[in-house]
Amino acid sequence: MSEIRILSAKDVAACLTMGEVIDAVRATYEQKATGAAEAWPMVYHAFEPGVADMDIKSGVLGGAGVFGHKTVAWFSKNPARGLPDLYGLIVVLSAETGEPVGVVDGAGITGMRTGAAGALGAHVLANPESESLLMVGAGHQALYQVAATLSLFDSIKTVRVANPHNPDRARDLAQRLPQKLADQFRIERPDVRFEAAGDLAQAVDASDIVITATMSTTPLIDADWVRFGTHFSCMGADMPGKQEIDPAIIAGGRLFADDTANCIGNGEIELGLAQGVFDADHVAGELGEVLAGKVEGRTDPDEVTVFDSAGTALLDIACAKMALDAAAEHGLGTVAAL
Amino acid sequence: MSEIRILSAKDVAACLTMGEVIDAVRATYEQKATGAAEAWPMVYHAFEPGVADMDIKSGVLGGAGVFGHKTVAWFSKNPARGLPDLYGLIVVLSAETGEPVGVVDGAGITGMRTGAAGALGAHVLANPESESLLMVGAGHQALYQVAATLSLFDSIKTVRVANPHNPDRARDLAQRLPQKLADQFRIERPDVRFEAAGDLAQAVDASDIVITATMSTTPLIDADWVRFGTHFSCMGADMPGKQEIDPAIIAGGRLFADDTANCIGNGEIELGLAQGVFDADHVAGELGEVLAGKVEGRTDPDEVTVFDSAGTALLDIACAKMALDAAAEHGLGTVAAL
Repeated sequence: MSEIRILSAKDVAACLTMGEVIDAVRATYEQKATGAAEAWPMVYHAFEPGVADMDIKSGVLGGAGVFGHKTVAWFSKNPARGLPDLYGLIVVLSAETGEPVGVVDGAGITGMRTGAAGALGAHVLANPESESLLMVGAGHQALYQVAATLSLFDSIKTVRVANPHNPDRARDLAQRLPQKLADQFRIERPDVRFEAAGDLAQAVDASDIVITATMSTTPLIDADWVRFGTHFSCMGADMPGKQEIDPAIIAGGRLFADDTANCIGNGEIELGLAQGVFDADHVAGELGEVLAGKVEGRTDPDEVTVFDSAGTALLDIACAKMALDAAAEHGLGTVAAL
Repeated sequence: MSEIRILSAKDVAACLTMGEVIDAVRATYEQKATGAAEAWPMVYHAFEPGVADMDIKSGVLGGAGVFGHKTVAWFSKNPARGLPDLYGLIVVLSAETGEPVGVVDGAGITGMRTGAAGALGAHVLANPESESLLMVGAGHQALYQVAATLSLFDSIKTVRVANPHNPDRARDLAQRLPQKLADQFRIERPDVRFEAAGDLAQAVDASDIVITATMSTTPLIDADWVRFGTHFSCMGADMPGKQEIDPAIIAGGRLFADDTANCIGNGEIELGLAQGVFDADHVAGELGEVLAGKVEGRTDPDEVTVFDSAGTALLDIACAKMALDAAAEHGLGTVAAL
């Protein structure tokens, strides 16, 4: 008889720091570049197209000695019934023996690993002493992106938040960010100014790093607004038809993906290709290849760099494994017989 | 915050009777035939070909209001380390809201649903007053097949067990079957004679129903041994290259599959097709289509019928859902916060 550990969203928050998640994301991207980690084909099903669907993403992480999968269910009518519209469940099994290790709630891990990925893209590709971050999108992801970026950049002095379709939400988040960062991530940075972006064009022009995490299906940021040397981490466009920045920005910049095949089919890169603004060869490589020293990242301080992420369940599995290890050490979560 | 229930193999045994599993299997096959249940593409990965692999099978059951997946990991070197060579884990989620419902150990459910499927194939296709069952294979599956067949046939008077490569195992199982059936399934049938099959050819000739559940990759049963009207449920050949009966038996009989596409690629039907003994049109239909009244089953008492099963995770998900419902009612299993 074996045992399995189950971690709730609350357990995950108690088990993982943003620094640890960033380390796990970095290691996973590197393993992907060297072939030690591999994602398997996604299973997708729409219960009702545009209303309710689910996907199962899976893969193996040789370095961590585990394989697993993440099931994400999206039911857009749930909030009207008082339920969340997204559920995520991550299962981790041993790649040495096949034994189930644990089941981990997906929501908290998805937030942290996506934040870590966006910030790591900036850390690898942006100019090192970047001082200003523009966060485009004031939804659930924004806090994670800002927390991870501040964890990786001591040099940041200004964080601006923009929410093109609802400026009030941006103002509200900018005001509450210092407290949220302290409460949820123990990040206290009195040296950083948090403010809502007034005019988006001016904010883009004033920023070294731009992170987008929206549900947009049309470009929010115009190529004309971008100054030399800016880095973009595009985290929102993770499905066919989603797009956050002008494809001309991508065409004029040095482009990296988290998973090239995945990005070519989903979002930012997909639409630029379809519109003929650039071709698939324009992808310089994957972020993991830069981390592994296989591909050069930024080549010039004046270059615009773009990191496009469509998301990979390998990050979820890696973070879930890390959370399960920490939970076992500290006796957190629920242990059940199998 | 939601909750999830985890059921161990022991919980499953306490929650499900063979009669309930047979009902769930029947309902699932019927739903598959009417389109209410659908299996999704399998994800397969070999960690080391022939030594260790895993698969993720998934699907939706409209009638039961759930979707889910079953992950099976096979690590052949495990027994040498004191671990089971197979692990199975079933996850059930609501098809109405996406909310995770439960996680269920796969071993017990796989045994019971496979037994139920083999017996149901016989119940639907064999002659109604069948008196003799030949169980080919004396491994883990044999007990489940016999238990389910006795549950569906009051007319059975003789159960023979054959194990071509190790007759001692067949003798041992035949002797212990009455006690095992009573202990694990509360099946007491003093009217039934349990015996080891001496000569396999004679045993086949003496049987109304033959169920095969072996690991064989070459035919164990010759077409010359088969008398008129015999039914075969071939449960063992569930992977490419596996084969239990002479393809000439299939060519001369009326053939049904649990899932036609799956069976054409895996085992019994696959090899007959490859050898040119029959063609794909020879499949008369799926068992669920017979249950749903869409396809005629047996057409003549003298006809040989064959049910080939490659297995579908839809059965596992249906049985896991049934076990979770019973466990919720009786307070069994472990409940964890998510």
